[in-house]
Amino acid sequence: MSAASKAKRDDPDLDVVVFERGEWVSYGACGLPYYVKGEIQSLEELVSVTPEEFREERDIDLRTGHDVVDIDPDERVVTARGDDGTVEQPYDSLLVATGAAAVTPPIDGLEREGVYTLGSMSDGKQLREYVARARSEGDLRQPDSGPACQFLETCAGSVGVVGGGYIGVEMAEALSANGFEVHLFQRGDRILTQFGEATSEAVRDHLAERDVAVYFDAEVTELAGGEAVEAVVAGDRRVPVEMVLVGTGVRPRTELAADAGIELGPTGAIAADAYRETNVPDVYAAGDCAEAEHVVTGEPTHVPLALTANRHGRAVGRTVAGEPTAAGGTAGTAAVKAFEMEAARTGIVDPEAAREAGFDPLTETIEANSRAGYYPEGGTVRVTLTVDRPTGRVLGGSLASEYGEGAVHRSHALVGAVTEGVAVDDLSNYDLAYAPPFNTTWDPVLTAAKVVNGKR
Amino acid sequence: MSAASKAKRDDPDLDVVVFERGEWVSYGACGLPYYVKGEIQSLEELVSVTPEEFREERDIDLRTGHDVVDIDPDERVVTARGDDGTVEQPYDSLLVATGAAAVTPPIDGLEREGVYTLGSMSDGKQLREYVARARSEGDLRQPDSGPACQFLETCAGSVGVVGGGYIGVEMAEALSANGFEVHLFQRGDRILTQFGEATSEAVRDHLAERDVAVYFDAEVTELAGGEAVEAVVAGDRRVPVEMVLVGTGVRPRTELAADAGIELGPTGAIAADAYRETNVPDVYAAGDCAEAEHVVTGEPTHVPLALTANRHGRAVGRTVAGEPTAAGGTAGTAAVKAFEMEAARTGIVDPEAAREAGFDPLTETIEANSRAGYYPEGGTVRVTLTVDRPTGRVLGGSLASEYGEGAVHRSHALVGAVTEGVAVDDLSNYDLAYAPPFNTTWDPVLTAAKVVNGKR
Repeated sequence: MSAASKAKRDDPDLDVVVFERGEWVSYGACGLPYYVKGEIQSLEELVSVTPEEFREERDIDLRTGHDVVDIDPDERVVTARGDDGTVEQPYDSLLVATGAAAVTPPIDGLEREGVYTLGSMSDGKQLREYVARARSEGDLRQPDSGPACQFLETCAGSVGVVGGGYIGVEMAEALSANGFEVHLFQRGDRILTQFGEATSEAVRDHLAERDVAVYFDAEVTELAGGEAVEAVVAGDRRVPVEMVLVGTGVRPRTELAADAGIELGPTGAIAADAYRETNVPDVYAAGDCAEAEHVVTGEPTHVPLALTANRHGRAVGRTVAGEPTAAGGTAGTAAVKAFEMEAARTGIVDPEAAREAGFDPLTETIEANSRAGYYPEGGTVRVTLTVDRPTGRVLGGSLASEYGEGAVHRSHALVGAVTEGVAVDDLSNYDLAYAPPFNTTWDPVLTAAKVVNGKR
Repeated sequence: MSAASKAKRDDPDLDVVVFERGEWVSYGACGLPYYVKGEIQSLEELVSVTPEEFREERDIDLRTGHDVVDIDPDERVVTARGDDGTVEQPYDSLLVATGAAAVTPPIDGLEREGVYTLGSMSDGKQLREYVARARSEGDLRQPDSGPACQFLETCAGSVGVVGGGYIGVEMAEALSANGFEVHLFQRGDRILTQFGEATSEAVRDHLAERDVAVYFDAEVTELAGGEAVEAVVAGDRRVPVEMVLVGTGVRPRTELAADAGIELGPTGAIAADAYRETNVPDVYAAGDCAEAEHVVTGEPTHVPLALTANRHGRAVGRTVAGEPTAAGGTAGTAAVKAFEMEAARTGIVDPEAAREAGFDPLTETIEANSRAGYYPEGGTVRVTLTVDRPTGRVLGGSLASEYGEGAVHRSHALVGAVTEGVAVDDLSNYDLAYAPPFNTTWDPVLTAAKVVNGKR
């Protein structure tokens, strides 16, 4: 919808047709966990622009309930099926923005009642209904003896979360806040893998404080039960649950493009150049279905997150409206709130990943006060920086702090450094804003840069 | 003390002697307003490292109570007077770090009782004592009918603040929080002049909401009264007050250096090269008494703020310990909290200043949600960006938001852009961190960059 809106705005004479399989467009999927949690009262609040507004105010021919089943790049026609039959739509330029789908992990019992994923608005609706139902019943039940519910007057039940990425962590918060005893299963040895070791550990410790049971190296093999799920099975461990949220990541939806001869890249997502054009002329790909160039390595990467999707969509809109526009790559920047913590990451944080990209990484983590030590509020910011030892180039970084202590916004300094290829010595000399309510004289980012530079 | 500590750490064989006129060293002067406000309970909390720690743990020969009265660069000797007479101290390398002094504006009556400035620890102590005294008496008094006190059960009295810079604004908060009716007098047509028009207006509006009376174009000519101050006189206006805080800026303390033949630069502060060395070999100058190179213009500038002072001091320490170290310039970055608002600025914000520096400026201000629109908390961030129209180079920017909504930490993105000479189009493509509790998909900084770029 970013592309459609931008194209139409830049060239109102264009005929812009959008096919959407579902009923919802332009919604903030990132807000779904907060809807399930109960902090957002209606799904409609997540919608930025309604289908009616797209049609009436932006003059975009938006056809919801239309499933595109074929792209014919030779004839320049797409075929879509809707309630009223099949339509063939010719095009001059085409954007494939098929997004990503939840990964279906090799787990038995995914079909059982009480097993959920969280990708779409209807997923969110179902989960919220489940939570409401369980809560209303929860008052009548005795608390379980689990790690969370023993502290609750009533317990809404034990639930499993499979996967310790954003969705897993955000949903652990959402469910715990509703009185569920949450058991989170992670395949590897840390959660939020992309955030680097120190940040992962900080969030893990916080989840433990919030009585979320986190199981590491816990490859879930079965969601056991009868018609409904009754337990999560991971190796020898079997944890009784009444519901399971599966959040094991997403994969790009590429079938439609691949069938049309559009090339996929090394990540499995659709390959596209700086203008998001695929190997097929005038066919573009943007968003969660497509690759983007990593700002550090210059190599294709697949980071299915909102900002890159928006930015690239907008660039495609400008391009097809006549002004060829590249919209930069991705730094793989991400942010997450986990209960009363916040964390962000950007660039290449993991030393192993840096080595694979041909660098000689040095990674250091520091802890610093989030505000002047004498200031009455404040907490601790942990900053992890990964630099290339010989050149000092900042490859990536990660930050964690209490919620409200600025880990996420402070990461803005690192995104610039990563994107511009700044040396850590130069970063340590940045004249970042300082006042006692906001940081120490040297912001934690600067302290980290000084420390890392001193160890090169 | 940054220089002394770093030099000694890098080369423990160095003899490091520090002369300090007063008794306090290494204290957070920026915290003084919060001490006066009552949020910090003792002056000692503002001290990072005590004189004893410098002497005993860092092996620095710190001589407090010693006033340096002469530098002889030919003989390489400084002369200092202490309680026990005059000492002559030979040196190999010398750092002049004489700081800045409060400007004495051309106002009659500055000598009256009840007139304060806030530069030193003893200033802070006196102000706090005044506040405590006035508060204890205030309970017995009827509220005045002024803009603040009419809403208070008791009023600690009417006070004047002369000057609308950081100190003026922070002290307005500190005094208002203690029940004073605050009258702030500003010579020009806006407060926080360096922050640009939009941010200044945002803070002005907020001060008004908090019942601080702000008088613009109000050049104070007299602090009238008998032995004690009784009124602030600005043109035809005469406002009765019981106390006045004069915060009209600082000037570099350069007399000692100038007398020794050390050159001053165009700003009036001590001129120094990238290594902070003055025209006199082995004599360095850093901190509030010295110039620094502006990262945008490359020209000398005088920005007496804590981080540059710390950074340059540290660099001088490294340099004299044998590793010549430049520590970058200054972007003139600054941050301020004003009641329940926060603001930051960096680079060249003011179009007039940009024109004087040879640019063709374009300045735009946007307002955006600080968090996802559907997220239950949040406010508004105003972002002002100034760019060079032909090249798109980001020259500077300013942000304002509710306190806690991230104006200051978000400014970190702009500092990098200003320092690296990034074009606004590239800035708009930065992959900044996003999650609903922290911003909209496009952080307000990105939205501002898009808008400005679109208007070039």
